[in-house]
Amino acid sequence: MHRTKIKVAEDALDANQTIARANRDDFDREGVRVVNLMSAPGAGKTTLLEASLSDLGDVRVGVLEGDVQGSMDADRIAGLHIPVVQLNTHNGFGGECHLDANMVRSAIPDLDLSAIDLLVIENIGNLVCPAEFRVGEDVRAMITSVTEGEDKPLKYPLMFRACELVVVNKVDLLPHLDFDVDRLLANIETVNPGAQTMLVSAKTGEGVAEFRDWLSGVPSRAGAVA
Amino acid sequence: MHRTKIKVAEDALDANQTIARANRDDFDREGVRVVNLMSAPGAGKTTLLEASLSDLGDVRVGVLEGDVQGSMDADRIAGLHIPVVQLNTHNGFGGECHLDANMVRSAIPDLDLSAIDLLVIENIGNLVCPAEFRVGEDVRAMITSVTEGEDKPLKYPLMFRACELVVVNKVDLLPHLDFDVDRLLANIETVNPGAQTMLVSAKTGEGVAEFRDWLSGVPSRAGAVA
Repeated sequence: MHRTKIKVAEDALDANQTIARANRDDFDREGVRVVNLMSAPGAGKTTLLEASLSDLGDVRVGVLEGDVQGSMDADRIAGLHIPVVQLNTHNGFGGECHLDANMVRSAIPDLDLSAIDLLVIENIGNLVCPAEFRVGEDVRAMITSVTEGEDKPLKYPLMFRACELVVVNKVDLLPHLDFDVDRLLANIETVNPGAQTMLVSAKTGEGVAEFRDWLSGVPSRAGAVA
Repeated sequence: MHRTKIKVAEDALDANQTIARANRDDFDREGVRVVNLMSAPGAGKTTLLEASLSDLGDVRVGVLEGDVQGSMDADRIAGLHIPVVQLNTHNGFGGECHLDANMVRSAIPDLDLSAIDLLVIENIGNLVCPAEFRVGEDVRAMITSVTEGEDKPLKYPLMFRACELVVVNKVDLLPHLDFDVDRLLANIETVNPGAQTMLVSAKTGEGVAEFRDWLSGVPSRAGAVA
């Protein structure tokens, strides 16, 4: 006697999850590890990438730039002679405030995956919605800058919780701010116990080597859930 | 002979617009002028309100605090003995990254409109979606901080275009930044010609009096399109 097979449809019905898995399959096939990098607008994603990507040793890196519109950040990355693809949500994706798996999928044909080992996806500057959409990445990292206030992990917990790494940027400005780094780190620990943190200044270079090492060592989660 | 009346349904079909008009009707009935205040996370909305709202002369002010979750900002405003209502999108509104007219409407019963002349709605920290939703306000204002970079008007033009006033905050940090104020102002002018701008430091108080004057003088657009 055959039993009826009951497919648990929950995951399958989530189109974003389905497409994220397809992206992962493509990345895995080419041995490309993928970082989804997120932050509020102006926290310093592009500046940190400029400071770190040009010296990754043997690791061949590519960048997917997410923006509502324009290509200012992609142009900056291209200036480093790093392959970069601009993905705008303004045209075709309703000006969305985040990247999702389908948008990333639309850009994959423009990426030569065989020519890179590491893909950094620079998400749209936003502390809310990007955390809700897996895009097929291995790891998620975020930047919070010390000019944004120590309270941000408590106000945007989903974002801080979603990320394996929280980079604390603009530490060169600490002498000029009323900012308690320990309080920020405690707030991060509250919402995401055990999260890795890193104090950096993309401007002065402080801590950038540590971020570079982290990028070089991003583990592949091949086969893991996208 | 009767002609068929053809209702132009475009506006009527936009539920947000419909509800924003209803909010406007309520605000107008009580003679309350309304500011929708927006910015990226950490640009200093709450700090600027703390610095400016306690000394508005005859103007009785109230605040509607929008956050994904928590009431940290509302607690700060309440400390000034100003009536404040917390509106969270986490419960009941799907953790949305912006306020819309319906969310604001849900909070109106908690606001004693007869006891205030001016309502400041502090939107959720986000440079994308809040600009897309009228909530029944008279004017929209935004804060951009000098730590966010001069490029933000070009990267988030809808937000900068939506606002009658752009407050440039954290100017006390200018000596410590590579930041060209003239370039920022030129970029604002590019996307929103004629927009009013104001240089302030909520921390040192520089320019805060000008913002306070602006708040006190917000004109009612009673009868205008919500």
